Amino acid sequence: MQESHGTVVLRYGHRPGRDDRMTTHVGLTARALGADRVVLPDNAGQSAETIRDITDRFGGPFAVELRDDQRAFTGGWDGTVVHLTMYGEPVQDVEGEVRAAHADGPLLVVVGGEKVPFDFYEEADFNVAVTNQPHSEVAGLAVFLDRLFEGRELEREWADADRRVVPMETGKRVVETGEADGSDGGAGGDGSDRGGGA
Amino acid sequence: MQESHGTVVLRYGHRPGRDDRMTTHVGLTARALGADRVVLPDNAGQSAETIRDITDRFGGPFAVELRDDQRAFTGGWDGTVVHLTMYGEPVQDVEGEVRAAHADGPLLVVVGGEKVPFDFYEEADFNVAVTNQPHSEVAGLAVFLDRLFEGRELEREWADADRRVVPMETGKRVVETGEADGSDGGAGGDGSDRGGGA
Repeated sequence: MQESHGTVVLRYGHRPGRDDRMTTHVGLTARALGADRVVLPDNAGQSAETIRDITDRFGGPFAVELRDDQRAFTGGWDGTVVHLTMYGEPVQDVEGEVRAAHADGPLLVVVGGEKVPFDFYEEADFNVAVTNQPHSEVAGLAVFLDRLFEGRELEREWADADRRVVPMETGKRVVETGEADGSDGGAGGDGSDRGGGA
Repeated sequence: MQESHGTVVLRYGHRPGRDDRMTTHVGLTARALGADRVVLPDNAGQSAETIRDITDRFGGPFAVELRDDQRAFTGGWDGTVVHLTMYGEPVQDVEGEVRAAHADGPLLVVVGGEKVPFDFYEEADFNVAVTNQPHSEVAGLAVFLDRLFEGRELEREWADADRRVVPMETGKRVVETGEADGSDGGAGGDGSDRGGGA
């Protein structure tokens, strides 16, 4: 979002095939819920392509980056590092402190995939848990971002979108951007829904 | 949670193999973030097993149900039906109304998998979007539940757990339940992390 400082989500580890869908959902969630950029392992090219495709169609700005030096990237981060893990401190207890740190500089949010090396727990400025229960890295990221931005991310405007979903009480409506009051995109729109958006 | 009325999450549609992990994450997210029960299609037995296993180890109460009559189940629901979809009304605009309805009776939250039939949009009391962007049904469910319960779900106590994660600033600590101050469970605990909990 156009916050004072950037918010970057890093997906730590990726097993091609098995993790494709989860990594894609991490990236799409980062985009939809207010991050400026997602950094994926360089073997997650397929997920990167999907996220870029959605950004091309539904708007940005949102950057997708593939890197082979994830550990060096987190180690060299000039700002605050949050590591989301079920072993960390409750999000409701530390979110204020994280927000205060983010007001002073950029924030890197690390979402584990394969096992995160133990010393990473010491390197992170905050180890944050969205409940201390096992559930989903996508769910944890979503709740964390919604709380970090205190809901402002839900009001974000998108630039350079080809299409836009018009919220409706019932039914599906997608308009081509530029149309003041376009026709119902219905099945012609991004019919997949992706279960997504919610 | 021990709210006045039950909260049930229904996963609509499931493709064995391809959807296993997403369906499992929907169920684990429902459990961790305050629902009382998840209803899965009857071909999602593997996901049901995983969710039950987590409940056995980390506590409940939380019920997992497999049904082959999902459409009849939603149609016969005696209470409010929320359908999460990127085409719906913004969660921030309707969450108060949904909460008010839930104060009067049970709530069914439907999470799409395969394409949800169009007439379901008309059947639902609320079509709710967590942003009108394509992202992840798991992310949408997580933000919806956190807002529905206004964060109270994060303080939930778990019954009949074999083990409990102790929140820590750094590191991993899992204690066997009953131990007043158990030893570090470390790798001996549920080391998988599942990227989970956050």
